[in-house]
Amino acid sequence: MRMGMTMTQKILAKHAGLDKVVPGQLIKAKVDMVLGNDVTSPVAIKEFEKLGLDRVFDVNRIALVPDHFTPNKDIKSAEQANVIRKFAKKYGIVNYFEVGRMGIEHALLPEQGLVGPGDVVIGADSHTCTYGALGAFSTGIGSTDMAAAMATGEAWFKVPQAIKFDLKGKLNKWVSGKDVILYIIGMIGVDGALYMSMEYTGEGLKSLTMDDRFTIANMAIEAGAKNGIFDVDEETLNYVKGRAKRPYEVFKADEDAEYERIYEIDLSGIRPQVAFPHLPENTKPIDEARGVKIDQVVIGSCTNGRIKDMEEAYQILKGRKVHPDVRLIIFPATQEIYLECLKRGYIEEFIKAGAAVSTPTCGPCLGGHMGILAKGERALATTNRNFVGRMGHPESEVYLASPAVAAASAVAGYIEDPEVVLND
Amino acid sequence: MRMGMTMTQKILAKHAGLDKVVPGQLIKAKVDMVLGNDVTSPVAIKEFEKLGLDRVFDVNRIALVPDHFTPNKDIKSAEQANVIRKFAKKYGIVNYFEVGRMGIEHALLPEQGLVGPGDVVIGADSHTCTYGALGAFSTGIGSTDMAAAMATGEAWFKVPQAIKFDLKGKLNKWVSGKDVILYIIGMIGVDGALYMSMEYTGEGLKSLTMDDRFTIANMAIEAGAKNGIFDVDEETLNYVKGRAKRPYEVFKADEDAEYERIYEIDLSGIRPQVAFPHLPENTKPIDEARGVKIDQVVIGSCTNGRIKDMEEAYQILKGRKVHPDVRLIIFPATQEIYLECLKRGYIEEFIKAGAAVSTPTCGPCLGGHMGILAKGERALATTNRNFVGRMGHPESEVYLASPAVAAASAVAGYIEDPEVVLND
Repeated sequence: MRMGMTMTQKILAKHAGLDKVVPGQLIKAKVDMVLGNDVTSPVAIKEFEKLGLDRVFDVNRIALVPDHFTPNKDIKSAEQANVIRKFAKKYGIVNYFEVGRMGIEHALLPEQGLVGPGDVVIGADSHTCTYGALGAFSTGIGSTDMAAAMATGEAWFKVPQAIKFDLKGKLNKWVSGKDVILYIIGMIGVDGALYMSMEYTGEGLKSLTMDDRFTIANMAIEAGAKNGIFDVDEETLNYVKGRAKRPYEVFKADEDAEYERIYEIDLSGIRPQVAFPHLPENTKPIDEARGVKIDQVVIGSCTNGRIKDMEEAYQILKGRKVHPDVRLIIFPATQEIYLECLKRGYIEEFIKAGAAVSTPTCGPCLGGHMGILAKGERALATTNRNFVGRMGHPESEVYLASPAVAAASAVAGYIEDPEVVLND
Repeated sequence: MRMGMTMTQKILAKHAGLDKVVPGQLIKAKVDMVLGNDVTSPVAIKEFEKLGLDRVFDVNRIALVPDHFTPNKDIKSAEQANVIRKFAKKYGIVNYFEVGRMGIEHALLPEQGLVGPGDVVIGADSHTCTYGALGAFSTGIGSTDMAAAMATGEAWFKVPQAIKFDLKGKLNKWVSGKDVILYIIGMIGVDGALYMSMEYTGEGLKSLTMDDRFTIANMAIEAGAKNGIFDVDEETLNYVKGRAKRPYEVFKADEDAEYERIYEIDLSGIRPQVAFPHLPENTKPIDEARGVKIDQVVIGSCTNGRIKDMEEAYQILKGRKVHPDVRLIIFPATQEIYLECLKRGYIEEFIKAGAAVSTPTCGPCLGGHMGILAKGERALATTNRNFVGRMGHPESEVYLASPAVAAASAVAGYIEDPEVVLND
């Protein structure tokens, strides 16, 4: 007897035109959106041009977002951005987002309604898994796959096995999606979900905002997963309503879906987490991380640059000052988020506190620009990776945490619990 | 019979402890402030350290402003910033301005009251001449001179000859300090004031705000001048009041001061100016510059990143949209200016118009980062130099203009007269 399918498997089956898929099966599936950035698209464009086609598969289903080394860091990045710009004009790509206009790809696409529940989305960027927060199957691919998909609207996938995360309880104050995913990666390891789908369900979802879910899905790749995906609920539908530019479909896992493992997680038991160098799995609860002196704090990125993240940072920074030995850089992930921060008075408080507020860019997260570390420097960042040299010098260090922990630590001058800073 | 002295000569004589100096004379003078940035200070610090001293001449009279490749563009710039940071800590430099905290040196020092009328200021940056707007003698020097001055508080100067600019009349609407200095450089050429002081006086001063004067003094070096300097008037004193951190002294030129040349300039006759590639002297009135298609517009820098500049840009951008083919990047020059822009609602309008608003940095002006040009691209910038490859690829082009012309052109998509855009 065959088992039922998970959310991911159902979405893939539908897009492959099959009634049923099983883990390990190779399928060709239609894609709803193909994404590339300024690092990966130029390679894909070169490959695409070799095909000699005069059109892409669908001008509405390709998104080009120059966000990594922009506003142009140097001549090379300026040339790369220009390759994309010219390609977008030549082929009439509707969802080309000009440098400096919109923001970071994985915050932008959901905000602009370009991804939705039930979609298959591929992107030439490893954190494309972010859109699983909306109940979509989304995953990172290489530039050549991007080229092929721009031509055909299809891609090959190996159907992943699944791990189920059954969430219970409620998050405590100053604990957020970042803490949940760091906790999970700490538990299962950076290869703990290798080529699997991480499927989130359970009554605990109710305590997770959309922004929490984006953060959790975003870091699925940091556990080695093919994708992360959330049950669609009222919160998801509220988010999608008024944004979605295409029809969408909600998929639910079958009752008898097969999971490689099932974890029950009580959200109320999770403390703020900090991932120590040089892997996201090196997590400790804040209580064991306090006191590590830091030189720079970065709040932003596709992982934690959304409005709820900014709100957390604001609540802590308001009326306080960044420690004189710390540089705090804050990057709202999109211009829409930046504007909302402006209206709510966050930007003013950030600057008064002593932060540099940047236009949206991936810059510091990947060691690109706008906040690179010198030898021996230590950063606490709300970004997604703390590999050796990720944000600068090979002998620098990156610690990962939530916006709340990041803001509190910027004030303290060392890694600190938000509750302690607030009660100071 | 000996002639009298100019403003510059009087300031230098006083600081050299002499009753009288004459053009060409070599003097050793006390300096009131020594400035360095992240590019020049590390070299100066290396030289200083060779002296084996355990103290600088005065911890209050050195300003270190890492603003060129900050927030750190790359590992090299991170290392440079760190050299300054460590030096500042070691020697107790009071006016060390942390990366991302304060802003661009030449906007910052006047704002923080660190320079004032009658000062002698030297800085390892060519646009140090900016402070002449306050009736100070200020000029750019090399890193080794900076090292020596940090040790001794003195520097050697050759007393400059002077050119007098006798200003009459009033600026018309949408004509500002930038147009005045571009007009003058267009008239006298990029070596038109070689090693001379450009001394501004006359009843026309009344129509120049402090921000106009900063812009005009800032670009003295673009005419080859040693310095630019303005008569001190009520406007100057109002600016200095409440800011000045040291006593200051107002110097007036003698009636019989000797000038190499005297120009009478009727401000009311100046049209908005545009300097074409690849020299600031290639100026044309806007009427002969209209229609040149542009890819990027940069509003900001030590030349035009002050509140009046932002206000001009705002008045034009408010309720309008940046042309889809143009990237507009706006850089308030300091965090104080950024905050004031926030309070006045400028930042919100800039972003709504489609601009990227950056934290203060010199970045794009010197081709450092944050807006570099690709091959064949054309920028209109409110910055100070349009040399070959200044903002990126050797085959890119830079046009210089005022914030008003820049904002209007960003909307039009090509170089355009503000009046035309406003009446559209």
